[in-house]
Amino acid sequence: MKIKVLKDILGANELLAERNRQLLDSQGVFAVNLMSSPGAGKTSLILETIKKLKGKIKLGVIEGDVSSSLDAERIGKENVPVLQINTGGGCHLDANMAHNALSNMPLQDIELLIIENVGNLICPAEFALGEHKKVVISSISEGDDKPLKYPLMFHKADIVLTNKIDLLPYLNFDIQAFSRAIKGINEKVEIIQISCVTGEGIEEWASWLLSQMRQR
Amino acid sequence: MKIKVLKDILGANELLAERNRQLLDSQGVFAVNLMSSPGAGKTSLILETIKKLKGKIKLGVIEGDVSSSLDAERIGKENVPVLQINTGGGCHLDANMAHNALSNMPLQDIELLIIENVGNLICPAEFALGEHKKVVISSISEGDDKPLKYPLMFHKADIVLTNKIDLLPYLNFDIQAFSRAIKGINEKVEIIQISCVTGEGIEEWASWLLSQMRQR
Repeated sequence: MKIKVLKDILGANELLAERNRQLLDSQGVFAVNLMSSPGAGKTSLILETIKKLKGKIKLGVIEGDVSSSLDAERIGKENVPVLQINTGGGCHLDANMAHNALSNMPLQDIELLIIENVGNLICPAEFALGEHKKVVISSISEGDDKPLKYPLMFHKADIVLTNKIDLLPYLNFDIQAFSRAIKGINEKVEIIQISCVTGEGIEEWASWLLSQMRQR
Repeated sequence: MKIKVLKDILGANELLAERNRQLLDSQGVFAVNLMSSPGAGKTSLILETIKKLKGKIKLGVIEGDVSSSLDAERIGKENVPVLQINTGGGCHLDANMAHNALSNMPLQDIELLIIENVGNLICPAEFALGEHKKVVISSISEGDDKPLKYPLMFHKADIVLTNKIDLLPYLNFDIQAFSRAIKGINEKVEIIQISCVTGEGIEEWASWLLSQMRQR
């Protein structure tokens, strides 16, 4: 019975997500759903992405958090359209929340929309928002066993950004084992090493975004 | 309607949790519920705790994970009773899962039971398991804004362990701001800085555990 209810929720969510995708497509907006553990660097990556792509393409950001508007305030200083969703305790965004946010964004002025999900490596993987690509950030300070312990998130990812690579000298983290574990779950996923502190990999990430946008 | 259902679930969970607590008390077992983001260091802390307290008190461990038994295997090498719960996608342990686990543990041979929850800074805070104390680990690599972004977890904590303090020279982390934010949410909480790499703070953590056990 419990599974049946879950299926119905997920079915309804898929339907709403598909409508969101149609809306985005009709406005020429390319959207990514950015997911990670708490503190893996989602907001920092968005700031670096804005820095790299501002003037080249028109960006917009939706910030998802349990509470607070700290992240939206950080993004707002960059003068890009930003909207905060507070889930009020909920552990993930869903397509309905995304729909409400999209209705309040100036989509005609946005080419790339980054949706920062709630910091959680479990539930956000189950709920499509209408995004075109799913981006997972994994900070190396979380350890190299995360793909094996949270397989659905890595299975659903289109790209995994291995973040905080600047900390590598100070951690016991096996990059080969980490990448191997991800590829074992998701053969086609792309993996890029990045650091929002040193800027390593940000150029490659921005190029990936632009190439994905061109392919649509 | 949604809120009503959630209340009923939480009410039933509280009842089961209370029964678990009575069972633990009847067997003289002191239990802590260990919660954190993915990769904040729960399993490493358990290993350090075993190292510090083995021979002094009898330990047991319940490992909660979405999938895999990696953590239980790591703990099992230390020759303490350990049991793995896989939630099969679920993002938190609940009192019913804990009850099933307790029924399969040799409680008469355990004085301190550490329950490692699923790596998630949101939902585990809402579900009591029957534990006597809630322990939250926050790794400094997650950033000093976590208490403001995940307030319920820090509000419910009896003690916060600020972990990976050895990485402080390499991170932009304000310890004073972090502690102030926690105290703003939860005035009475204890805060200890620890490192499972250097051993800093582990003695203080072990002393806290022993003093809590004596007070019961």
